[in-house]
Amino acid sequence: MSSEPRRQMHLNLFLMSVGHHEAAWRHPQSQPERHTDIRYYQELAQAAERAKFDSVFLADGLATWGRAAHSIVGGLEPFTFLAAVSAVTEKIGLIGTVSTTYNEPFHVARKFASLDHISGGRAGWNIVTSGGEMEAQNFNKEEHLHHHLRYQRAAEFLEVATSLWDSWDDDARLFDKASGAFADPEKVRAIEHKGEWFGVKGPLNVPRPPQGHPVLVQAGASDDGREFAARYAEAIFTAQQTLEDAQEFYRDVKTRAQKYGRDPDAIKILPGIGATIGATEAEAREKEEYLHSFINFDRGMGMLSFLLKQDISQIDLDGPVPPFPPIEEVNGMKSRTQLVDELARRENLTVRQLIKRLAGGRGHRTFAGTATQVADQLEEWFTKGAADGFNVMPPLLPGGLNEFAEGVIPELQRRGLFRTEYAGSTLREHYGLSRPRNRFEASSQSERGGENI
Amino acid sequence: MSSEPRRQMHLNLFLMSVGHHEAAWRHPQSQPERHTDIRYYQELAQAAERAKFDSVFLADGLATWGRAAHSIVGGLEPFTFLAAVSAVTEKIGLIGTVSTTYNEPFHVARKFASLDHISGGRAGWNIVTSGGEMEAQNFNKEEHLHHHLRYQRAAEFLEVATSLWDSWDDDARLFDKASGAFADPEKVRAIEHKGEWFGVKGPLNVPRPPQGHPVLVQAGASDDGREFAARYAEAIFTAQQTLEDAQEFYRDVKTRAQKYGRDPDAIKILPGIGATIGATEAEAREKEEYLHSFINFDRGMGMLSFLLKQDISQIDLDGPVPPFPPIEEVNGMKSRTQLVDELARRENLTVRQLIKRLAGGRGHRTFAGTATQVADQLEEWFTKGAADGFNVMPPLLPGGLNEFAEGVIPELQRRGLFRTEYAGSTLREHYGLSRPRNRFEASSQSERGGENI
Repeated sequence: MSSEPRRQMHLNLFLMSVGHHEAAWRHPQSQPERHTDIRYYQELAQAAERAKFDSVFLADGLATWGRAAHSIVGGLEPFTFLAAVSAVTEKIGLIGTVSTTYNEPFHVARKFASLDHISGGRAGWNIVTSGGEMEAQNFNKEEHLHHHLRYQRAAEFLEVATSLWDSWDDDARLFDKASGAFADPEKVRAIEHKGEWFGVKGPLNVPRPPQGHPVLVQAGASDDGREFAARYAEAIFTAQQTLEDAQEFYRDVKTRAQKYGRDPDAIKILPGIGATIGATEAEAREKEEYLHSFINFDRGMGMLSFLLKQDISQIDLDGPVPPFPPIEEVNGMKSRTQLVDELARRENLTVRQLIKRLAGGRGHRTFAGTATQVADQLEEWFTKGAADGFNVMPPLLPGGLNEFAEGVIPELQRRGLFRTEYAGSTLREHYGLSRPRNRFEASSQSERGGENI
Repeated sequence: MSSEPRRQMHLNLFLMSVGHHEAAWRHPQSQPERHTDIRYYQELAQAAERAKFDSVFLADGLATWGRAAHSIVGGLEPFTFLAAVSAVTEKIGLIGTVSTTYNEPFHVARKFASLDHISGGRAGWNIVTSGGEMEAQNFNKEEHLHHHLRYQRAAEFLEVATSLWDSWDDDARLFDKASGAFADPEKVRAIEHKGEWFGVKGPLNVPRPPQGHPVLVQAGASDDGREFAARYAEAIFTAQQTLEDAQEFYRDVKTRAQKYGRDPDAIKILPGIGATIGATEAEAREKEEYLHSFINFDRGMGMLSFLLKQDISQIDLDGPVPPFPPIEEVNGMKSRTQLVDELARRENLTVRQLIKRLAGGRGHRTFAGTATQVADQLEEWFTKGAADGFNVMPPLLPGGLNEFAEGVIPELQRRGLFRTEYAGSTLREHYGLSRPRNRFEASSQSERGGENI
């Protein structure tokens, strides 16, 4: 036994109504009628907290994706959702997706700061630039902003949001009843941002968040996405099908981060894993096949048509997958399109096989086996430079979470690879991330520091 | 005893950090360091629920008003706040302020729909058009949108939001596992809105809220504000200093409502009341004076300067109040400016006296007396055509709420003027408001109903 503390992995529970398998809602055990019932999600988050997960994560979009006829579409909104979950949990981090393309930085900075106060420093922001024109059309636009411009906007959005969080010093509030000084006016300042995309005066109308900044999370894996992540992200959710691809991604992002003067260890990379767990490997495979039996192949064809940018509804399910459009023509879901293309080629899949492979995790890695086998897989990726932890995506909820918590986590704990108790109380502390210093604070003693209020 | 059910009043608790008196934070009993502590507000809401209040209400703005040096500025954001409060309460309504001027209808409709699901039908939206250029400057604009245009935008915003809430029929979801039909595609539809201010395709990405629409609340009292309220509002928070003014407002708004074919009883009018309660009248006045003793008159001068549109920091505190600008030149806080002007003239106040009169409720009516005297006042306004209920604004929190709950409410209950138990479980039910029918539902059987998803 070494006295040096062992590196441990980080685990995020990716919440997804009744499970990540697209047909999970048809499983006899699932309760699709609870998909807008906050108590259902509060119970999931509480179970994840008992299992010592670092965080829960809610994905989001700004349009009704898919066909209401065939799958669960429409759900609760991340800020309201996470605030309600925060009220019944104590430690677990709370990560929500919010788009920089169809939002204003003042609103987003304010809501995350508020969520961070409400949760006692447990907020995380999964930064997305939105995926398509269905979203644009809900926000006064006919066309989706171009991929490259979206990332430019996102970068400026982040500059504004982080400046707003820093617009109050941590010790700005005095609460001095005797003198009547509520706050030190030298420590609350306008940010006077005037840029390409935004003009924001500030200060923010909420004090600096407990974490300084909520944890910044990112998931885009295109070239622009990797660059953005290397510059800003503190945790990355990523879809990787093979160890080699995951290692390449891990190495690439951490190398890019150094270009921005960042410590590579200050970015935690979490590939997705959709594990179907059985008492035996055969049982796990059976469970997976049983879920596949509920797949609606029309819906799968519709999703593939979207990625392929052509209608394939008339194609032979047992024939080959048609060629994907050139990656430079894709404006939204860029890296995911590429992943699906490579997956189909590498494994020489038919349309039916590809739909089944995607059903469990929309391009994220799926795996069926015993709890020990799952732990082996996670350990391999974790120790071989492919991951700092995992984005856990149970195919079926709540059952799949319970199986992971009761089988895989104790095994990881036995191996010293996962915590047995929370050491801290904020999301930053769980992920081992330092608290950002305030960019204005050093100067506020000596300079006038903008317009005080 | 009559067998006819007696008309009962509605009570809303207006939450405001440590109290509505501007100097409340300096009172020895106040805990200003808890102003961003959600548990503090959760306890207040729970106390209000035990007292059977209809609702709690959180005001909001999109800039840091006032000077951080002298008063509590900056606080939690309404959606995250109310969602966190919803998790620890069962019955009480949850009303939040959201601006139509610096928001997009898709976001706002989504978040209120989500809050309504999360709270089981307890959400209410206090619709504001924002008050000034400090807010504009946080949203890429130098100048505040003109008053009249703000209300035009607000009207279209409401049309879009209500259409989005109706974009799912109440019974759109089927959850039919056997056939694989999650929802009936005929009952989820695009809204295809294309107007002056917004282009929104829809549908909303959350099912229809439990209340159909969250309760629509409004507080503007200018001519545009009254017209807007008469057309859309289901509850109105209003500042009225005298019985006569309150009666005029009540009559006027209910008459205007009939013009839009609305039942006047479907709009509940709640004037604000900041009651300081004592065992005797003398004790109550003493408590009020004690709070006044903490007033920072520099801050009061600053606030008056804002309303007067001139710097009065050098003026004699014991001299007369200078003339207010002509009302047609005021663009933001229009009706409140008029109210303060009239108050100063009617009572021939000095600057110092006016600042004290405004300190307790920013223009809302204040009253110091015993619990019985407060109940008498409320009963008089309620029975004489001035109010359907009240917006309760304790000068000091939590103390002022407890005094109201323990003194005034039992007295109102003895008189049969207030509920002793909740009859329903939604905010609409508490306020006696009917559930809006879905504008699309009647046609969806016979028509194609837009583009289904």
